[in-house]
Amino acid sequence: MFESAELGHAISPATYARAVPKLREALLDAQYDLFQDGRFPVMILIAGIDGAGKGETVNLLNEWMDPRHINVAAFGESSDEERERPPMWRYWRELPPRGRIGIFFGHWYTDPILDRVHRKSRQPELIQSIEEIVRFEKMLADEGALLLKFWFHLTKDKQKKRLKALEKDPQTRWRVTKTEWRHFRLYDRIRKVAGLALRHTGSAAAPWFVVEGQDACYRNLTVGRTLLAAMRERLDQKPAKPAADRIPPIPPPIDNRHILGALDLGLKLTRRQYTEQRALYQGRIYKLSRHPRFRERSAVLVFEGNDAAGKGGAIRRVAAALDARYYRTIPVAAPTEEERAQPYLWRFWRHLPRLGRFVLFDRSWYGRVLVERVEGFAGEFDWTRAYSEINDFEQQLADKGAIVVKFWLAISKDEQYRRFRERQKTAFKRFKITPEDWRNRKKWEAYEQAVCDMVDRTSTAVAPWTLVEANDKRYARIKVLKTICERLESALRLQ
Amino acid sequence: MFESAELGHAISPATYARAVPKLREALLDAQYDLFQDGRFPVMILIAGIDGAGKGETVNLLNEWMDPRHINVAAFGESSDEERERPPMWRYWRELPPRGRIGIFFGHWYTDPILDRVHRKSRQPELIQSIEEIVRFEKMLADEGALLLKFWFHLTKDKQKKRLKALEKDPQTRWRVTKTEWRHFRLYDRIRKVAGLALRHTGSAAAPWFVVEGQDACYRNLTVGRTLLAAMRERLDQKPAKPAADRIPPIPPPIDNRHILGALDLGLKLTRRQYTEQRALYQGRIYKLSRHPRFRERSAVLVFEGNDAAGKGGAIRRVAAALDARYYRTIPVAAPTEEERAQPYLWRFWRHLPRLGRFVLFDRSWYGRVLVERVEGFAGEFDWTRAYSEINDFEQQLADKGAIVVKFWLAISKDEQYRRFRERQKTAFKRFKITPEDWRNRKKWEAYEQAVCDMVDRTSTAVAPWTLVEANDKRYARIKVLKTICERLESALRLQ
Repeated sequence: MFESAELGHAISPATYARAVPKLREALLDAQYDLFQDGRFPVMILIAGIDGAGKGETVNLLNEWMDPRHINVAAFGESSDEERERPPMWRYWRELPPRGRIGIFFGHWYTDPILDRVHRKSRQPELIQSIEEIVRFEKMLADEGALLLKFWFHLTKDKQKKRLKALEKDPQTRWRVTKTEWRHFRLYDRIRKVAGLALRHTGSAAAPWFVVEGQDACYRNLTVGRTLLAAMRERLDQKPAKPAADRIPPIPPPIDNRHILGALDLGLKLTRRQYTEQRALYQGRIYKLSRHPRFRERSAVLVFEGNDAAGKGGAIRRVAAALDARYYRTIPVAAPTEEERAQPYLWRFWRHLPRLGRFVLFDRSWYGRVLVERVEGFAGEFDWTRAYSEINDFEQQLADKGAIVVKFWLAISKDEQYRRFRERQKTAFKRFKITPEDWRNRKKWEAYEQAVCDMVDRTSTAVAPWTLVEANDKRYARIKVLKTICERLESALRLQ
Repeated sequence: MFESAELGHAISPATYARAVPKLREALLDAQYDLFQDGRFPVMILIAGIDGAGKGETVNLLNEWMDPRHINVAAFGESSDEERERPPMWRYWRELPPRGRIGIFFGHWYTDPILDRVHRKSRQPELIQSIEEIVRFEKMLADEGALLLKFWFHLTKDKQKKRLKALEKDPQTRWRVTKTEWRHFRLYDRIRKVAGLALRHTGSAAAPWFVVEGQDACYRNLTVGRTLLAAMRERLDQKPAKPAADRIPPIPPPIDNRHILGALDLGLKLTRRQYTEQRALYQGRIYKLSRHPRFRERSAVLVFEGNDAAGKGGAIRRVAAALDARYYRTIPVAAPTEEERAQPYLWRFWRHLPRLGRFVLFDRSWYGRVLVERVEGFAGEFDWTRAYSEINDFEQQLADKGAIVVKFWLAISKDEQYRRFRERQKTAFKRFKITPEDWRNRKKWEAYEQAVCDMVDRTSTAVAPWTLVEANDKRYARIKVLKTICERLESALRLQ
């Protein structure tokens, strides 16, 4: 992995001086084309051996290009807001939007590599982290990001010399601290662990570039030209979507039976049953939300369903059981400008709850495989990859202790018609019904297919779907409350 | 303050049932007009006595209107990210954008009132908090927000009855905890302290509405109608700016001397002096940034200056002395869609550093009183009020331990011409010069006037301006580094 970067590469200052002005001009042009075009973000990861020029490269890129269109993200200790969410949350926060360059000085490789170097983790854990990274970077690439990863390298001998030289010069002495020497003593382990990580994560979509760091002229020119070539290639190519990772379509079942058809939509509760059970479950949910064990967990509740299935009513009955300080309802509407410039899941990551909190999503990330699929807002390439991206996302939530509860509220086509008509008649309910609702209704079967595929592909052990028979609102609301109770009790080991 | 809300107001359920459908319809219409029109945000503060219907009102408004266009913000314990910034930061984070309704269940009154009730603060501190709130709410109103503050009230006797009734009913028993009874025992103090706070903060721009909470029908209808009337009035009125709080213009000094003219732009350093001093000050800044006392402080550095005065170069020399994990550079460009829907200062609040960190603003909130004033992008009403809003903002930063250092880099008109020409000749510097720069140059005198006014009005003890003679880049950079050193040393009491 590092052999070619241990040859003692160097170029003369004169060659460098001749090459730089043209390179800077070309980089600036590329940066402006990127900004104008706004088609994709550029993400540059800076990693490597201490003293090999990581910090210098960050400064260089800011000097060579227009720093107003560059985000530099560096990461110190995690804040509690960060620690209470999945580890990737802090990186999602810092993703550059399309049209901009993000430099990650510190990134998703830092902890897995250092934990393994310091023997805080074992090999299988490192391998698992690597697999998660591969999937994350594939998602970024699929979303269109240009991802370039630089590893700055030095031989052990050269690192020692470099640190000594920095220490000797009174002007740079302050740059060498105990941390640098501690890392030096771990050189061999770092080289070995990093080598493994780099080998497993250097895909065509997210390549590693190993750059020898000893000679600044060589290093700078190599980085500049690598970046330029990659940007130019992407900018000059036609904006073509990569070919779909096509999931073979699930054929409709030949006996025409599906999970939605199997629901008994005749299930009902009397008003009295409803009132009693509602109070019972709301009380239990309230107590669970205050349970000491819940302080180390969180709850992510997802409400999907047919139009007019009663999502809003169900959500309000859940919310009524919670302390307003500890829950938040997120109605999922059209994305904002900032959200449109980011990967699809970004606008959901930003709303993840801290520990001890609830978040209730009124519609969710499943829009991609429901309305966006059926209406053609997302291409096949995008909605088919969404299943595994969503599963990864929910797995990360669960790993951090989130209790993920997902509801599909199902009503019959007739019941929907009845509710649409009723909404039109009642003045203050009219806002709930739009021409779009009538249009969607015409695609009832396509939506049914999409729901069945969604449940099949995303109902997992950590985040199962609950189908709710919702023709009777009372029955539906109680089933929602009861399911939340049971999932919380089971997760908190109270059953 | 509370007398009218202790009369035992009530209406009959039949009257209520007749009134509600029309009210809901009208509220929904108003909400949609607000959303379509996107001209201003509505902020509803919910405060009052426990048991008087605060939570119920939040639920009611979400049920009566379309909850997808309502943000409910409730506040539990502060996170460390919140505690490390000025107390108002968490509220700024939750401001609703124009076109939406934000319900604040918990808000900037909560802590000042409760601290005083629990005798954690004294009367003068409460008064000071109240003054800060008045200025904050004035800013919101000036930015166009419609701010309605509801205090839900009960007599002591009625509160007791209400809590007992809730406790007796097995379906609501869980809603009454020790906190509610503790607040009940403090009833008299709460009434007294809140009465004072309400009296001092009920301006025309941000009125209080005291609502008796005992009878739900009366309470709901009162809130609904108050909200409707206020929204309707604002929606139907022509979008007229309020008359300017006109600051009398400072006339140009009759002897034509001003602070910029008094600068000695001939000041210079040799290359050797520069190299030595740069290393010296960078080393000192690095050590200061690692000083244990700095962990309880933060640094907010503001760089303003003439076009081509060398802001970027100075910023890079400061950044080179800092650990990338603990500083961030914020280039101030055109606001995003999310930012445009918020008060002017919102986009700067979102970038405030945590404790122990630096943030470097490449241009800043002073744009409002510089380019926006001179080019007419901001009306007189807006840029004149900006001075005091900015002073309030910086005071809040300083109160939280931020060391605010502000630089104006000044060059002569001739030197600017020389630099513009040089930039045009050097290919990779061409991006730094635009037709706009040449246009701005024609308004040199107007900018000079704006800079002098800005310095006069916003150079405060906690956030003084430093004027930097920048015709010689070396001199300017050293003055910047040296000033930062000295400000840090003095703030950390190391001098």
